[in-house]
Formats: sequence, structure tokens, C-alpha cells
Amino acid sequence: MPPPADHVEAVDLLWRYAFLLDDDKLEEWVELFVEDCVYQILTKENLAQSLPLPLVLCDNKDMLRDRVQSLRQANIYNIHTDRHVIGLPRVRVEGDQVDLSASFSLYQTDQEGVSRLFVVGHYRDTLVRRDGNLAIKQKDVILDTAGIMTLLATPI
Amino acid sequence: MPPPADHVEAVDLLWRYAFLLDDDKLEEWVELFVEDCVYQILTKENLAQSLPLPLVLCDNKDMLRDRVQSLRQANIYNIHTDRHVIGLPRVRVEGDQVDLSASFSLYQTDQEGVSRLFVVGHYRDTLVRRDGNLAIKQKDVILDTAGIMTLLATPI
Amino acid sequence: MPPPADHVEAVDLLWRYAFLLDDDKLEEWVELFVEDCVYQILTKENLAQSLPLPLVLCDNKDMLRDRVQSLRQANIYNIHTDRHVIGLPRVRVEGDQVDLSASFSLYQTDQEGVSRLFVVGHYRDTLVRRDGNLAIKQKDVILDTAGIMTLLATPI
Repeated sequence: MPPPADHVEAVDLLWRYAFLLDDDKLEEWVELFVEDCVYQILTKENLAQSLPLPLVLCDNKDMLRDRVQSLRQANIYNIHTDRHVIGLPRVRVEGDQVDLSASFSLYQTDQEGVSRLFVVGHYRDTLVRRDGNLAIKQKDVILDTAGIMTLLATPI
Repeated sequence: MPPPADHVEAVDLLWRYAFLLDDDKLEEWVELFVEDCVYQILTKENLAQSLPLPLVLCDNKDMLRDRVQSLRQANIYNIHTDRHVIGLPRVRVEGDQVDLSASFSLYQTDQEGVSRLFVVGHYRDTLVRRDGNLAIKQKDVILDTAGIMTLLATPI
Repeated sequence: MPPPADHVEAVDLLWRYAFLLDDDKLEEWVELFVEDCVYQILTKENLAQSLPLPLVLCDNKDMLRDRVQSLRQANIYNIHTDRHVIGLPRVRVEGDQVDLSASFSLYQTDQEGVSRLFVVGHYRDTLVRRDGNLAIKQKDVILDTAGIMTLLATPI
């Protein structure tokens, strides 16, 4: 049974993860990760077949910074706002490490004001403690479909 | 770190909020609020621009009572049932006050039995303790779109 | 106020329930139930009218085993993967029994990679302790619509 304190803090981190994305605070979102982090987007199908070729792979924090900068300055993509609805999480404390898993649905609202389901999937997070606070060591975003690949712009 | 007791009670209140709406128990739903409450529906866009003109504003409990009564007796609107799926919440205890925030997706099911996404957004609640129990002092319902404005009937 | 330990364990069980279904681990899913269990799928409308004729009723674990076996070997249905997004839960501890209730949205992704809302509703679970662990004594799956009846194949 995880101590309530770690449990609450881990869930709080996941809450902030989603709210920073939904509020387009991408620079603050990057700060949830440690320097030697891994952020990857996979598909459920590939994972089930042990073919974990990611759709997106950032294996350190500079790659995340770079991605945010290119979103801000270079990329052309459909303008939208995001809304993550994250389902109930499971938290496991293993020594200094906290594992977190939760399903999510992600909705996008376009400039006409129409909200649509964008993608569903689940998160598999590994959290570690840095300077007293939990931070993301690894984030696997596992999508139920690869059908949105060409539309991937903002982080999920 | 919030004490687990307040955390559980705050989440429980939000759970009841949604279930009372989804079960069409609007009169009981009103009883979750204190007399000098604020209930407002805003859009994310207005909030981001510091233009918080609400789509709906009830700034005391009598206005909520009135709204429920007019839904029961006067209003004509599309008959449906609601389903709120509320994502993982963040709870903050500040002295006697509890702040709560969570994203949600709201589905409506019409009389033909078709369920559709109605709107997504997030809640920002301020809870206070009255007679020993937490109750809603302020509820901001922040929608990702203003596109449903003409369809607003039952509370969100 | 439920003790945090039971609360966490009950939510953990519901998390596993959903993840086993979403990972197509139906045989492991069955093992979450006690032998003398009840699993039923109802509609909100019937429940509100006290007409609880279930769409599906399995009133012991062998019926669940049988259902999984027929899904594996006999049934012909649209191939898909599931994604349950379960909203914030309420947990009540009553002596040796734990009651759990939560809304959910269920998405299906077809072989073309298109994800769609399949159904929304809520769970009403009764959990009991067997050999030290919580297990499902009764699971009521209450759907907001009966409109999907002919498409019911995999458990919800």
C-alpha cells in the first residue's frame, strides 16, 4: 500500500502535467521532467507485439525544450486547445521510484469552437525525487491508434 | 500535502455534484452550495484574456433554486440525460478553505438513446466548511468552447 | 471517512478491472471476482423505473468464465480494442464490505485505427475481502442507453 503522501504528490504531478498542456504552458510543462528523461509516444499495437518503435522519442530534456521552441516559432499546425481527461490512476512506490499509470481521453477544440475526441490511450510514468519533489524520469504515452500520426503537434 | 481526510471529503463532494446532476436530482444538487455562493459558467478563451464575462452567473443560492424551478416548470429544452466523467482532481487545503480543480467531459444521451460528447472543460471550486461538512462557496465551470451557448439548459 | 488503505486498494481494483479489459486479458479479469459473484449490465432508464431487467446477467463466476471462453472460441463480433476512462470514484466502507461508484466513458478503436465513443455509464461495485484482498462481489454496469444492445460483446 503506498503511503498517502507519495500517492497524492504523484497524482498532483499528473494533474499539473495535463493542466499545463491544456493551458498551453509548454515551457512550464518541460520543467516537470528531469534532465535525463525519456518522453515517448507509442502505440498499443506495437507494444503488444514487442515492437516498441515510438512515433515520437525525446530521450533528454533538451529535446523537449527544442520541441517546444519549434512549436512556438517554426511549426505550422491546426490551432486548437487541448483538454485531457485522465481516468483513475494506479500508483506504485518502489523504493525511491514511483510508478504511475492512468488512461486518458484527449479532446481538441478548434477555432470554430467545435470540440472533438482526438485520441485515447494511457500513460505509464516513472517518477523520481529531485530536490525533494517528484519529477518525471520516463513518460510513455501509449495510444490506442496510430491513425493520428500526421496530426501530432502539441505534446500529448 | 493535504490531510487525506479533507482530500477524500472534497473529492466525495465533487462526486456527488456530478451524480446528482446525472440522476436529475437538481433540488439535492442545490443543497451542495452555501447560501452566499457563486456559480458561474465561463469560457477558457475569455478567462485567458482576463475577460471573465460569464455565460451564466448565479451569485447566491436563491438564484440556483430559481434556475432549478424554471427548469422543472417553465423551460423548454431538448430532453436528455447527462453523464459527467471527471478526471483526476487536485486538492489544496488553505486554512479553512479547500480548493479543488478537475477537468471533465460531459456527455448527453437523447431520447433516441444516442450518447454524444456535449462539452469539455474544467471545474475550479472553492469549498468551505458549514456545520462540519464541506460545501461549495464558489464553482467556476470553465468551458473549452462557447459554441454550445444556446443549448445551455441543465447545469454543468 | 474511509481509511486511506481501503480506499487506495478499492480504487486499485477498479483500475485493474479496466486495464485487464483494455489489454484483452479477459481470463485475468475473471479472477477479480469471487465465486458467488453477480455481474450485470443494466440501463439507467430501467433502474430509474425500478425495472431492473438486465441486458446481461451472470450470477456466478462460472458464467463469467463461460462468457470469456465463448468470446475466445465461438463468438463473431467486430474486432476492436477498448479504452475505459473512469471518472473520480466514491468509496464507502461498511464493515467488511466496500462500496464503490464511478462514472465511465468507454471508447472502441477499430481495425482501421478509428477511435469512437462506444458507451457512457457508471459502475456500482460491492467489494469483499477474500484471502486478505478485495475482490468483486457484485458489479452493476449501468449504461446511459440501451441503444448498443446488439453490439455488446466484450465485457464493459
